[in-house]
Amino acid sequence: MALIVQKYGGTSVGNPGRIKNVARRVAACRARGDQVVVVVSAMSGVTDHLIRLAKEIMPLPSEREMDVLLATGEQQTIALTAIALHALNVPAVSLTGAQAGIVTDGVHTKAKIHNLTPKKVHELLNQGHVVIVAGFQGETPEGQITTLGRGGSDLTAIALAAALKADLCQIYTDVDGVYTADPRIVPGARKLDEISYDEMLELASLGAKVMQSRSVEFAKKFGVVFEVRSSLNEHPGTIVKEETKNMEEVVVRGVALDKHQAKLTLVAVPDKPGVAAKIFKALGDAAVNVDMIVQNISHGAGTPQTDISFTVEKADLLKARKVIDGLKTGIGYGEVIVAEQIGKLSIVGVGMKSHSGVAGKLFETLANAGINIDMISTSEIKLSVVIDLARGEEAMKAVHAAFIG
Amino acid sequence: MALIVQKYGGTSVGNPGRIKNVARRVAACRARGDQVVVVVSAMSGVTDHLIRLAKEIMPLPSEREMDVLLATGEQQTIALTAIALHALNVPAVSLTGAQAGIVTDGVHTKAKIHNLTPKKVHELLNQGHVVIVAGFQGETPEGQITTLGRGGSDLTAIALAAALKADLCQIYTDVDGVYTADPRIVPGARKLDEISYDEMLELASLGAKVMQSRSVEFAKKFGVVFEVRSSLNEHPGTIVKEETKNMEEVVVRGVALDKHQAKLTLVAVPDKPGVAAKIFKALGDAAVNVDMIVQNISHGAGTPQTDISFTVEKADLLKARKVIDGLKTGIGYGEVIVAEQIGKLSIVGVGMKSHSGVAGKLFETLANAGINIDMISTSEIKLSVVIDLARGEEAMKAVHAAFIG
Repeated sequence: MALIVQKYGGTSVGNPGRIKNVARRVAACRARGDQVVVVVSAMSGVTDHLIRLAKEIMPLPSEREMDVLLATGEQQTIALTAIALHALNVPAVSLTGAQAGIVTDGVHTKAKIHNLTPKKVHELLNQGHVVIVAGFQGETPEGQITTLGRGGSDLTAIALAAALKADLCQIYTDVDGVYTADPRIVPGARKLDEISYDEMLELASLGAKVMQSRSVEFAKKFGVVFEVRSSLNEHPGTIVKEETKNMEEVVVRGVALDKHQAKLTLVAVPDKPGVAAKIFKALGDAAVNVDMIVQNISHGAGTPQTDISFTVEKADLLKARKVIDGLKTGIGYGEVIVAEQIGKLSIVGVGMKSHSGVAGKLFETLANAGINIDMISTSEIKLSVVIDLARGEEAMKAVHAAFIG
Repeated sequence: MALIVQKYGGTSVGNPGRIKNVARRVAACRARGDQVVVVVSAMSGVTDHLIRLAKEIMPLPSEREMDVLLATGEQQTIALTAIALHALNVPAVSLTGAQAGIVTDGVHTKAKIHNLTPKKVHELLNQGHVVIVAGFQGETPEGQITTLGRGGSDLTAIALAAALKADLCQIYTDVDGVYTADPRIVPGARKLDEISYDEMLELASLGAKVMQSRSVEFAKKFGVVFEVRSSLNEHPGTIVKEETKNMEEVVVRGVALDKHQAKLTLVAVPDKPGVAAKIFKALGDAAVNVDMIVQNISHGAGTPQTDISFTVEKADLLKARKVIDGLKTGIGYGEVIVAEQIGKLSIVGVGMKSHSGVAGKLFETLANAGINIDMISTSEIKLSVVIDLARGEEAMKAVHAAFIG
């Protein structure tokens, strides 16, 4: 008898018919003799509807009250899911995040889980129930309702799996698992049987948005092995776990293309200590997330000057531009060049640590295709290049063919 | 500085615009220097929508899970109402029933309030907040979510007013107060300035459905004076309170017509001890609520026989008929006559205790109008007659004119 935590997202529980499907899946699992804990999101559309109502009353509503409001979405799904299991004669009990013992800090709308004491969950499992837990929510030690922010339901599932020492944690979604590349762009993309936490983290942050990074980080921290799989079929998914020796045999696990970045270049920045710090501290203070940073070598006679380029999310571009313009007199750079038509192509793999020649092969592949490289950035298990957005998908196909096949 | 509990029903908070209206009303009250606790229902339509979703999954869903599901309706309204007050710069905090300290028994979908410890409410009021409490809900000592059943939000308001020793409890609805008769039937009906708990209870049970009886009973038990008034205007409403001496000067406070009853007559029932008990115990066991019962004197030679008539809600008629048919061989009555086209006309007033001739005047009024009386039933402060449904409204007008003017 195994203890399994299953998480179903908003699309999987989007209406009564789909909730019944989830119940059938859970019932089948239980019929095989397993104990099941089910974590569910709000039905798709419910959260957006509630946000609309609140904003109709006030454009920037209180975060405490938004948590009270939005937590109702998951609470509705747990009740309906329990009822759907009852309809299949499966004993089931729903629990809100608070009832399940999920205690968070008091940072409303993006609370962190402080601790999780799943006493009630254990009790109900031992009584033979399937336990349905509301994802995305918890409560402070003082009894305030909180929500965990984006990807919060995945986090609930992984935290529960850790606290319950579950044998398996399954994240059900509308794709079959994690792919070597987005199959809508690269027809030859293959589903991966397994991937390491670090590779998954790099891919998550690179635009292959299967899961939010924080859930993967949490799983890595607590060693929770989980499977990403589809709620629409019975195909095995992708197992995400700590890297093993044999994982390194594969050099490149996946290829990702991020189309949502923009590049800013500060031309002719005085090359003296503290200038870069000033720029990126100011951006950080304005809550602009900077991704890649490239600084070229100094040039010019007299005071040495350099060019500094960096990328930000397109959504943050205006904010970043404002910060940079504000620094002009203080720092005294030449001009700012903004490029929005860029794509960030990345290859990810723990095997890159022990294989040389990866960068050379990547650059050669792109050169053969006549694609120019604009910026380069590397980490231990990742290699990213910024290229022309218009050539992005073509580049992705070529790189996938060269490294994965 | 007074402490006021205000309750707003589903229509009053039916959409963001109406919630803003409620907030303006609360803000005005607070601007006069009062402390305000606001109890709200689910937005109109929300509860029905959730019930539909549940029944789509299973026709008879678990009552525990229905409570988890339906409690979300009020939780949404409290958050939106708090946000609407923030938009007017009024500090406000929402509390679920559980957070407000409402502890109930474990009878899901119709829980009774066991105790109410409004520590949190007091704290927040003392900090200068308006406190918004979810009506209709509570939690068991074990932390299970419960709901209070029909009229539950009124009950929450009255229970809070009692526990907080509020100076005033206002039940906001879509009518101006309690009337001497339904103004849609009797154009001359007047709004009452005040009414006693007992009169209100009789009227509530007689088809003048301003409030559920249980809330009025609770108010009577704990001596909570409350006002029924409209959320659509500033007119003073009707004060409901313990009867006072001067209330007895009015003989008839109101006239009500109940069109939802049906009459069953068992003809030629053997008149011996225990027969009536058998009949009404069987009906009670089947959860059929019997209202009026009339037994005529015995007649016939040999074994004395009598006719027994009683009324039930039309909705219970089939069930009642089945019970009665099942008793046929055991009791041995002649036949059953069912009348559905009946109306129960009632006059209510604490003054009836000290005034004689009320029954005579009622019967004379109906006789003058040529309306036949089918059954008669009396209590200390009420007189009811069953008449032909087709003559019901005409009778109501005549009786209102005779007693109230």
